[in-house]
Parts: sequence; C-alpha cells; structure tokens
Amino acid sequence: MENLISMRDLTKADIKKLLDTARKIESGEILPDLERKVAGLLFFEPSTRTMFSFDTAMKRMNGQTIIMSGTKNTSAKKGESFADTLRTIAQYADIIIMRSPIEGSARYASEVVDVPVVNAGDGANQHPTQALLDLYSIQKTQGTLENLKIGLVGDLRFGRTVHSLAQALSIYNTEFKFISPKFLQMPSYIKEDLKEKNVKFTEYLDMDGNIDDLDILYVTRIQRERFADPEDYEKVRGTYVLQKSMLENVKENLKVLHPLPRVDEISTDVDDCKHAYYFQQAKNGVYTREALIHILLGGE
Amino acid sequence: MENLISMRDLTKADIKKLLDTARKIESGEILPDLERKVAGLLFFEPSTRTMFSFDTAMKRMNGQTIIMSGTKNTSAKKGESFADTLRTIAQYADIIIMRSPIEGSARYASEVVDVPVVNAGDGANQHPTQALLDLYSIQKTQGTLENLKIGLVGDLRFGRTVHSLAQALSIYNTEFKFISPKFLQMPSYIKEDLKEKNVKFTEYLDMDGNIDDLDILYVTRIQRERFADPEDYEKVRGTYVLQKSMLENVKENLKVLHPLPRVDEISTDVDDCKHAYYFQQAKNGVYTREALIHILLGGE
Amino acid sequence: MENLISMRDLTKADIKKLLDTARKIESGEILPDLERKVAGLLFFEPSTRTMFSFDTAMKRMNGQTIIMSGTKNTSAKKGESFADTLRTIAQYADIIIMRSPIEGSARYASEVVDVPVVNAGDGANQHPTQALLDLYSIQKTQGTLENLKIGLVGDLRFGRTVHSLAQALSIYNTEFKFISPKFLQMPSYIKEDLKEKNVKFTEYLDMDGNIDDLDILYVTRIQRERFADPEDYEKVRGTYVLQKSMLENVKENLKVLHPLPRVDEISTDVDDCKHAYYFQQAKNGVYTREALIHILLGGE
Repeated sequence: MENLISMRDLTKADIKKLLDTARKIESGEILPDLERKVAGLLFFEPSTRTMFSFDTAMKRMNGQTIIMSGTKNTSAKKGESFADTLRTIAQYADIIIMRSPIEGSARYASEVVDVPVVNAGDGANQHPTQALLDLYSIQKTQGTLENLKIGLVGDLRFGRTVHSLAQALSIYNTEFKFISPKFLQMPSYIKEDLKEKNVKFTEYLDMDGNIDDLDILYVTRIQRERFADPEDYEKVRGTYVLQKSMLENVKENLKVLHPLPRVDEISTDVDDCKHAYYFQQAKNGVYTREALIHILLGGE
Repeated sequence: MENLISMRDLTKADIKKLLDTARKIESGEILPDLERKVAGLLFFEPSTRTMFSFDTAMKRMNGQTIIMSGTKNTSAKKGESFADTLRTIAQYADIIIMRSPIEGSARYASEVVDVPVVNAGDGANQHPTQALLDLYSIQKTQGTLENLKIGLVGDLRFGRTVHSLAQALSIYNTEFKFISPKFLQMPSYIKEDLKEKNVKFTEYLDMDGNIDDLDILYVTRIQRERFADPEDYEKVRGTYVLQKSMLENVKENLKVLHPLPRVDEISTDVDDCKHAYYFQQAKNGVYTREALIHILLGGE
Repeated sequence: MENLISMRDLTKADIKKLLDTARKIESGEILPDLERKVAGLLFFEPSTRTMFSFDTAMKRMNGQTIIMSGTKNTSAKKGESFADTLRTIAQYADIIIMRSPIEGSARYASEVVDVPVVNAGDGANQHPTQALLDLYSIQKTQGTLENLKIGLVGDLRFGRTVHSLAQALSIYNTEFKFISPKFLQMPSYIKEDLKEKNVKFTEYLDMDGNIDDLDILYVTRIQRERFADPEDYEKVRGTYVLQKSMLENVKENLKVLHPLPRVDEISTDVDDCKHAYYFQQAKNGVYTREALIHILLGGE
C-alpha cells in the first residue's frame, strides 16, 4: 500500500490490516509516534468535517499538519500548474491528503509525487476513508463484517458514500436492502456488479416493515435539489425520515449509521437510542485515518 | 470544575486554584504535558487575539489545536444543526473552546457535549477568561486581590469586560471608582448587586484628581458608535484619554490595565512608564488559559 | 544575529554559519528541539509557498506555529496600530516571521518587539531567506560558493529575488551573465555596486550560446503585465523559455534553479534532466529556514 486512492485498490487483506491497526490504535495497543512528521492537507474543496478528522488523526499521533484550504493557493493564481503545486508541497510534507472537486485528481497526484497520497474525496468519484470508517464501525459493532444484513436508505443514486460502501461490502457475503425513492435507486452499474459477484440485494420504496431483520441501517440524506419539482420532494421526504417509533421491533444489535452531516433524515429522538451510532462512527473515522496514515508512513 | 461558562460559576476557591496554577505554570513549577491532546477552537465570531491566546496556551503545553473560524463550517451550510456540529467536534477534540456572537451559546454547548467547554466570549454576555487574566494581573502586580482601590474608566455601560471584572472583584473587599461619561455609566443592575454585597463604589465624570489613590486603573475604549451625535463624542473623548502627564502623582504601585486592542484611549507616551502593564497583561492571558485548560483536562 | 531583515545585515561568517547549520540539520547531525516553542507567522500578504516552508521548518523541529494570514487581524479592524499588533503577538510568540507588502515593515517590526523578527518578504524590498536557500542550493550542488559562473535569466529589472542573489553572491568572486530583454535588464544601481566590488558581469539578450560555460542557470519569470504592448511580450517570451534541447552542451555540473512558482519559462521536458534542481531547491528552503530559526532562538 503506497497510496489510498480508491477502495478498488485494496485487497481483503489490506482492509483487514487497516481495520486491525485501527483497533489496536483505539485500544492503545499501538501508539504511533509521528513526531516531526508533517502531513500536507490540500482541501481544494472545503470540507470542515473531513479535514478536522484527518487533522486530528495526525495530531493524536504526535504529528503535524500544514493546511491549504479553498482557493488559498496563491501560486496557482500566479499560473502554476497543478502538477508543480503538488511537487512543491511534496518537498515539505511526508504525506499528502487531498480533497478536490475533480474526479481523478487524487490518482493524478499520486502519479506526480513521490510521497504517499490519500484521497479525501475527489468529486463524485471516491471517498475511500469514509468507506473504511464505515467498515470499521460495522465490524466494531457487529463483531464481524461477514454475513450481515445491511440496509442502505435515502439517495442511493447520487450518494458517493453508499456506492463505495456497497462495493466494499460485496466481498463479505453481505445481503443488502436498498431503500429509496424510485428515481434515486442504486445505479444499474453497481447492481450489475453485485449480481456478477452473486451478492444478494432487494429494492424497496419504504422503510416500513423492511428494517426489522437488519444488522445495520445506513441512512443518507436526500437533497431537495435532486427533485425537479419541489412537491415531489415534499411527498417522499417523510417516508425516508427515521423516527424512534420505527425502531420498536428491530434486532437488538441493529446500529444506525450516517455519514453526517445529518439534516432531518434521522429524527433527533433517535439520538438517545442504543441503536444510534452515527456520532461514534465519526470518532471511528479518526482511528481509521490514524491507521491509514501510520501504515502509509511505514508503520508496521 | 467541568466547564468555564461564566465567572458566576466559580467559587473563591476555584479562582484561587486557577490563579495559583497559572502562577506555577508561569514560574515553571508545573509543566503540563498535553501531548496528543487536541483542543477544538470554534470561533464563530472571529477574534484574532483571543484565538491566538488560546492557541498559544495549548501549544505551550505541548498540545494541539484544530481550528474552525468564521463562517467556515461547511456542514452548517449543508443544514446541520448547531448541536450536531458540537457533538461531532466533540468526537475529535478533548476540549472545546468556543466564541460566538450569541448569548448563552457556550452554556448550551456545555449541555450538549461530553467534553469540557470554555466560553471564549458569547456576545454581550460573558468572557470569563478575560476576567481571570485581569484578576491574575492584579494579583501578580499587587501581591493580593484583597482591599484594593480599583478605577474602571471608559465605557462602563456596554463593556462586557468591566462588568465581569466588577462582579469578580466584589468578593475581595474592593473599593471601586467608576469613571465614565454620564450616559455610559455602570448599569443599575450591577450597582444594585454591589450595594447588596456592601461593596463601596463612587462614580466620577473625570479622571482628573480621581486616580491618585488607585492601585489599579483599568481603561477601556469608548466607541464612537455609541454616540448618537458625533459632536458629543468629540466633546468627551479627550476627557477619557490617559496621558503620561496624568500619572505624575499616582501611587508607586499603580498599574494601568487595558483589555486591548487599544485605539487612542491610552496615549502611547504612557507605554514606557513603569505603570503601563497592558502588554504583560496579554501575556498573563496565556498562563491563565494554560491553567484553565490544564485543570479542565484533569491536571491537578 | 538577532533578526534577519536584509541580506545586507549578514557578514560572510554569518552566512557560513547559517549554511553549515542547514547542512547539519539536513544530514541529521543537529536535531533542534523546539518543543513548546511558538513561531508567530504574520502574513499580511498571502504567500502559500513561503508560509508552508516556514510552517514546515518550525514543525520539523518539533515546534509550533500560530498563523495570521491576509486580512484576518480583527484587532486592526478595530483600529489597533501596527505597533500594538506586533507587541501583542510578541507576548504569545517566541519569534515573529512576517511577510508584508510594505517595504521596511520588517525592519520596523524588529525595532518594536523584543523577540527575533524574520523578514519573509517586504514588498519589492527584501526576501532574505530566498537568497539564503539559493546560496545553500548553489553550495550544495557545486561544493562551493567561490569562483562560479552564474547566469541569471528573465526579468532582472523587477525581480527582488535576483537582486538579492546578485548582491549576496558578489562576495564570492562570482562571474555573472545577465540574460534578459533590453528593458528588463539588471538595474543600474546594482551594476554600479558590482563594478565597485570588481565583480565581473556581462549582459546578453539571449540564452543561445551563452549558457554552455555556466555552473548555475537561475531562471525567473517574465510577467506579461510588464509589457505595455502584448505583442512585445509575445515576441520575446519564446527567447526566455528554457527547453531541454538547449541543455545539450552545458557543463556536467550545471544546475537549473528557479524560485518557483514556474509558469512556462522552463519547459516541463527539462524536469527530468539531471540539471533540473528547482524542486530540491524548494526543499532546501526548509533546511535553511530551520537553521535560521534555530540560530535566532539561541541554538548554537
């Protein structure tokens, strides 16, 4: 593992190693020491949460960060090429963590520089550390990644997160339920891919009656902007809001995940349930990112 | 002490402990080690100086910070609630230091998250670490907080700083002189409060002849915007500008304090006097904030 | 050495000490430890690259930074004087590193505060750490600073960098070639200065045939905005673009330097040549700045 650009680059063994390392970091069994090491956080598209998570990960390992965010790259304004910007940052930083609105830009970066590159989201394409922290959260709460029933709810069409997660889970004999409005269903290319791999999935228009046998309920936001007609949005939105009352008959071990930020797709009365796990999930992101950086910088 | 939201939450013993700890940190007797600890600095209202002071405090103790300032919270733009933002940051940070234009927001934050919260200013309400560093500066220069004569000058009506300070000092048998234009006098509710506690105070319209028996002269800025008629401002402003010549007959031990930034209410010819103490006062803010963070994070 | 404001303040012995220290830091012979030390980075004019370089330098020595960049000084907005801002930052930071669009501002800062001040660029005036890293790069690649043939190419009239470099090299028996369009030639005051010091230099309009005996080729950008008539720019620009093919007959030891960012004055086909050194040059900036900060903070 020299970079992390896409979940597709990771073998099952790679993922196991990452999750094991995250677990050891969380428990204190491993205490990485990145004193004097510097991560370059290049966030060409702002994302407070993801940046904080990486920033924290680095600092909890005694490392440091230098941060370029938004449009603050004054050299680019002077006409510097993207490749030159990257090559220059690579003279300063031991690892580059990059978020960009442009698909493929993280892959490109990894080909241009000699230091490890982590994709912290490249447009609609990939956000692999989100998938990793989701896997970590699932394994931590269920004790395993194998043979689980997992429901994905909300915008399954445009949601980068659920695409990565569905693909990542496909190697663990997962059984999926895809719950979404008709026009926001999981894209065909992902469903075809799952079929080829003999992964079981079914599609639903409604959570009602369809979540009681799940181990994981992964909720995502449906953006109003996806609807051409605002009335269509108002019609469906209630259907995809998780309420506490809907959790009465679910399995004991069910955990509700959400990539955050949440708007109103999970009612706040769910927050105190034992099933709510979305804030701990955010914390797991720090351990997972610590593990990744630790490994990419040569940690065993 | 689990949070610091308001000076009113602190007992005399709490204040003593804080100031003692600050003194020990300044002298090197205590050397807190916050390696791998992360403070979340949430400055929803920018304040360079206060942010630098907390940032420095954390780093001088070998700790780290993650900083959100101004309107940069991209999750809020996506519709995330304030409570969710706080809960998420609390997954990353060991302590939250928050400044906000909204009164009561620090108290609210402390009720929402499980990590300690420090109020770094919430609108016109409270700015307790400013009061603490003022107390520390007074004690350090006078050897005691008890039985002092303290003059507060300038805008006593709208000044959050002087309100907190007057209340904080009221338990130390202080004798106050309030010096201000008539319509910028100390508010009645504070004067009533002082009377109930049998605290002596007198009010003046002028510094002339009224500062020679003081131990501390605390100067604050009078903002032009407070005056409906600019001519009124021009009439009074000279009266409340401290000049070097006015310090000829003051007590040896008099120290001039100011919360900074100063505009022109202290003439620069005062800066070299032995009575000038406002820059050291800023430095004391670092020691005081170190002590506070150290204690809130479990330091003895 | 208490500050670094201008290259003119440095003796040959000072420069030797700085470059020796940088070499020892690069090799690991010296490992400065700035734990709990804080550098105040005041970038009143944004410059991503220079800021990153200083930020990295501090952090690689286990130190910390507090950063004010652009127009974010909220105290200045409230009417605080520049001197007061500096004096306040000096209460927090152990060293001030300052970039400003205003000539002379770094010198002024050094007169106002008690902590060391480093000039990270003050308008068209000075950028001494750039000159130092250039010297370090030359010495590292040539084994010496003495008796070299050095070509400076591009905008020699307005280029702060080449002015500082020419002056800095004038004490090492350098032989210069100045290559530029006629109206962008090296200013008379610098040529007069070199003549007085008996430094040899010749001027050329063209790289062709004039770079084969050089040890160092220092390329700078010609800004389109310098030309009143855009056609004039189009006429000359090709002449000052370094192509790989132009390096066929150069000396084995020739290194091509550039302060970066590059736009198109060095063709990217040069990047893979053994002569290309501009990215390593950027890395050398970190070592040089580490050495400077280390020395100014009392490191031997």
